[in-house]
Amino acid sequence: MTDNELVAETTIRVRFDEVDALGIVWHGHYLKYLEDAREAFGKKFNLTYMGVYGNGFSIPLVNINIDYKLPLKYEDTAKVVIQYIDSDAAKLMFHYTILNESGEVVLTAKTTQVFLSKSGELQLLMPDFFKHWKLQNLCKKQ
Amino acid sequence: MTDNELVAETTIRVRFDEVDALGIVWHGHYLKYLEDAREAFGKKFNLTYMGVYGNGFSIPLVNINIDYKLPLKYEDTAKVVIQYIDSDAAKLMFHYTILNESGEVVLTAKTTQVFLSKSGELQLLMPDFFKHWKLQNLCKKQ
Amino acid sequence: MTDNELVAETTIRVRFDEVDALGIVWHGHYLKYLEDAREAFGKKFNLTYMGVYGNGFSIPLVNINIDYKLPLKYEDTAKVVIQYIDSDAAKLMFHYTILNESGEVVLTAKTTQVFLSKSGELQLLMPDFFKHWKLQNLCKKQ
Amino acid sequence: MTDNELVAETTIRVRFDEVDALGIVWHGHYLKYLEDAREAFGKKFNLTYMGVYGNGFSIPLVNINIDYKLPLKYEDTAKVVIQYIDSDAAKLMFHYTILNESGEVVLTAKTTQVFLSKSGELQLLMPDFFKHWKLQNLCKKQ
Repeated sequence: MTDNELVAETTIRVRFDEVDALGIVWHGHYLKYLEDAREAFGKKFNLTYMGVYGNGFSIPLVNINIDYKLPLKYEDTAKVVIQYIDSDAAKLMFHYTILNESGEVVLTAKTTQVFLSKSGELQLLMPDFFKHWKLQNLCKKQ
Repeated sequence: MTDNELVAETTIRVRFDEVDALGIVWHGHYLKYLEDAREAFGKKFNLTYMGVYGNGFSIPLVNINIDYKLPLKYEDTAKVVIQYIDSDAAKLMFHYTILNESGEVVLTAKTTQVFLSKSGELQLLMPDFFKHWKLQNLCKKQ
Repeated sequence: MTDNELVAETTIRVRFDEVDALGIVWHGHYLKYLEDAREAFGKKFNLTYMGVYGNGFSIPLVNINIDYKLPLKYEDTAKVVIQYIDSDAAKLMFHYTILNESGEVVLTAKTTQVFLSKSGELQLLMPDFFKHWKLQNLCKKQ
Repeated sequence: MTDNELVAETTIRVRFDEVDALGIVWHGHYLKYLEDAREAFGKKFNLTYMGVYGNGFSIPLVNINIDYKLPLKYEDTAKVVIQYIDSDAAKLMFHYTILNESGEVVLTAKTTQVFLSKSGELQLLMPDFFKHWKLQNLCKKQ
């Protein structure tokens, strides 16, 4: 993981319908929590879905890799920490850590998104708005 | 319930993620099964979402009333029977019965949908395409 | 609706995965928001699922009746107000109102739950713990 | 991917509630389709959740890695192919390919599950029932 301060976090609370027959969160529901974290990141650093869309792009996930460590149960709250991973490619990458109320790591994950034009064309070069975003957000830290 | 032959059915199978901590289908997931039945009805009687949309309307639900009778469990299959309820109003109404593998009634429900134009305006009069649909589908039975 | 002060509320935020192809919350997801409100009520008035279960009962929904008035969109927040409806029957009933950020009514609903023993037997008489709860919570208001 | 014939497949159909505001299946719903495939595999090769549980173990996912290639839309059907990946570790691994109606690859994925005793203890050695399963299912192919 790159060493930057582009980190955001959000808190989720487990809903009853997210818990399976074994009394723990069904593995697929964690993808909602990760999306909550991307949303929190987007708000904090001005990189929301709507904003990206306003610039003419959608940013679909092309890869997601999740390591499940510990379960969450009904009514648990958890902290989802998201960090931007910098890269030279025309990609948007994040690393995630979900922590339970005791501070134990429940899950780590990494997602990769690409830029598609509104007509659905994959962007091989970084869109200008994103170059600009990187300049603003990465350089000021150094 | 009106006495007509506008009846369709579909079979659903309970997914693992639809079962809650008590080992039974969470009550909200039944709305998917009812939607599966509306889809089956739409296909059988040429009244699909896409077709309705092609005629310039969306048909959002305005009321749903569900009576839960018996639970379903993981890996159960169930039959969802849907019947059109005729009315003079500019509404689309259906009655549903979900039956388990033993033929017992698991759930009954009724839904009411209205017609909205693409600009979101509620149609107080029945759209022409729907009058036509009713003529074709109700009269031929009498 | 009975006139009592057994009212609680919670705030929900629409997730991206809860929005359908028309850009509005899919009708089935509102059942999660209603459950969030029951949870908030349970916490405020000491009537949680876990507490009820500890008294030897589960409280499955047997009826839900929802009137959909206005849509919610991605990233909207909404207030879910829940009020206890008193009854002489061995039932637990609630009325719900969901309000959008402008204070408009998005949805109203009513749910009815029954008491099942752990062996799954329907309780025709009100369980003692619930009589006790009613005494404590209804009478003190008068 | 190991070269064996432990392959199963199932067909899924996209539900309306699985499609997002962009009109394509939300990325998290694919985990249901992968679970459908594990279920189909379990049935075909006698390795169901219930059977494993009957042997004293649960088999939670510890890693999932998904590559998203193409979108699916409302009412699309897709074929989910699952193949067992053999390993000397006390793990259960599968590779998945989802194909659209034109036979194009929509998604590939890999999952890793471990064996937990009913008291939640991670099994570092392969459980006997699983050794037996491997003997029966892998050797007969050679």
